[in-house]
Amino acid sequence: MGPGEFDLIARIRARAGTRDDIVLGIGDDAALLAPPPGRHLVVTEGVHFPRGTAPADIGWKALAVNLSDLAAMGAEPAWCTLSLSLPQSDTAWIDAFLDGFLALAGEHGIALVGGDTTRGPLSLSVTAMGFVDAGSALRRDGAQVGDDVWVTGTLGDAAGALVLLEREPAHPLRRRLDRPTPRVHAGRALAALASACVDVSDGLLADLGHICARSDVGARIEIPSLPASEALRDAFDDVARAALQAAGGDDYELCFTADASHRERIASLASRLDLRITRIGRITAGTAVVAVDAAGTAWQPPRTGYDHFE
Amino acid sequence: MGPGEFDLIARIRARAGTRDDIVLGIGDDAALLAPPPGRHLVVTEGVHFPRGTAPADIGWKALAVNLSDLAAMGAEPAWCTLSLSLPQSDTAWIDAFLDGFLALAGEHGIALVGGDTTRGPLSLSVTAMGFVDAGSALRRDGAQVGDDVWVTGTLGDAAGALVLLEREPAHPLRRRLDRPTPRVHAGRALAALASACVDVSDGLLADLGHICARSDVGARIEIPSLPASEALRDAFDDVARAALQAAGGDDYELCFTADASHRERIASLASRLDLRITRIGRITAGTAVVAVDAAGTAWQPPRTGYDHFE
Repeated sequence: MGPGEFDLIARIRARAGTRDDIVLGIGDDAALLAPPPGRHLVVTEGVHFPRGTAPADIGWKALAVNLSDLAAMGAEPAWCTLSLSLPQSDTAWIDAFLDGFLALAGEHGIALVGGDTTRGPLSLSVTAMGFVDAGSALRRDGAQVGDDVWVTGTLGDAAGALVLLEREPAHPLRRRLDRPTPRVHAGRALAALASACVDVSDGLLADLGHICARSDVGARIEIPSLPASEALRDAFDDVARAALQAAGGDDYELCFTADASHRERIASLASRLDLRITRIGRITAGTAVVAVDAAGTAWQPPRTGYDHFE
Repeated sequence: MGPGEFDLIARIRARAGTRDDIVLGIGDDAALLAPPPGRHLVVTEGVHFPRGTAPADIGWKALAVNLSDLAAMGAEPAWCTLSLSLPQSDTAWIDAFLDGFLALAGEHGIALVGGDTTRGPLSLSVTAMGFVDAGSALRRDGAQVGDDVWVTGTLGDAAGALVLLEREPAHPLRRRLDRPTPRVHAGRALAALASACVDVSDGLLADLGHICARSDVGARIEIPSLPASEALRDAFDDVARAALQAAGGDDYELCFTADASHRERIASLASRLDLRITRIGRITAGTAVVAVDAAGTAWQPPRTGYDHFE
């Protein structure tokens, strides 16, 4: 028989870390927090039923996908809560999970302030909170006809790792699937430059489609411009690679739009952050998201994103 | 094949309601919210794997238990997020779930601002946010030796309904199990009167034990003083009833401590809210939570609360 719920919570509490704006963290009925005056609060929640990956990777990724949502709003991370359901109380699992979760939390100064544990199928829910200056959040609804479309990092790596999972479970792409890098610093810097932003979780074309739908515009994307890692180029031919990059999920890169006058500033930002930021197309009139190949011919993805209920 | 994730989210979004302090609700990467200046933010998250009850009751209770946590802090509810995992996309289920969830949300002016849906075993996580004036939150750590111990409403009804569930699934007590009443108004009013507060979710003695542990005090509770509903008195003998009241869970009443000089004000509050508020014991030196029967003899509960991992 393992330790009970209260022991698990004590274990989590002992490692949760703190910040000056936390009046009361884990251990009361709720957390008590002091938001900074004049800033807006950004809140996102995500639920996950992880597959059989290492607990430390599960911890990392559960926080990463929520930090990625904050990044896509241009927010500075501050606080998070964690709800955890486990089939049985397993302190080794919890400790390893927290290793991954808190390593990423420490990188971004986000503190764990509360949550809940219960018994059930392995399931996690993380709520992440952060701040933006009032009026400066990156939203999905600001793209303008003529804007450039950009993406951070490289696309398709996580989807490639998924394809290779059974055959080559230790393939170098695997790390991009298990330990995605939320683009928090890029998102905060882009708050002053981008007209709209989304994080790429369901696949580039699907997520860019969200920007277009909310902004009432279309987009034209050049498939040959999509940034690919060396590892992805080595593992897949051009046709397979294009599909992974345009329609694969789990990238957690930022796709954003910006006026063409910002190209130089975006280039210096990329250099300052040591992060690839690639121009991949432009915003058009209409409502269609069109991808074209090198010859300018319309390119059709084998699927248009990942719908959790399809 | 049911509708996909995006349809579910659209369905939820259309019914989510709004508030003036919501800059951006459901539909972007995260919600964008404007906390009131000078107040503290109160945040609680809970995860649930509901048993086979009606979806409207599941929706009500998932929000109620989080509102109860806010009530125990003396907070004014403001915003919530919902993460939902469902085995398949089922719009009838979602609509019924939202009927219960949003009926309670509407009663307390709390707006649904974001969340997530995914496919998996039925599971819910709700994060609730509210405000308190800086410095006036009801915490667990303020109980003083000599304080009175009070409880709102009646105890043991939900635990009684659980006992009767198979034999009498439609027993009148059932409503207290499926549709608990979070004591939000009482909690807000008690912020000026109580020295410590907790909501009764794991059982009175266990939850009062949390106040005592955090306040470094003990407590003496009189079992005959514990408030019981007529329905509970009708359904159980005195011995069974005492156990349900002292150690049963799922009451979602508030247990609080207050200086004896506040007795009259607490009586007027009870009258104003039309809510029974009963004095059940007092805070003592030491660290033990002791329950005594009418003869003053120590009373031992058959179990000391509900630990989710026991």
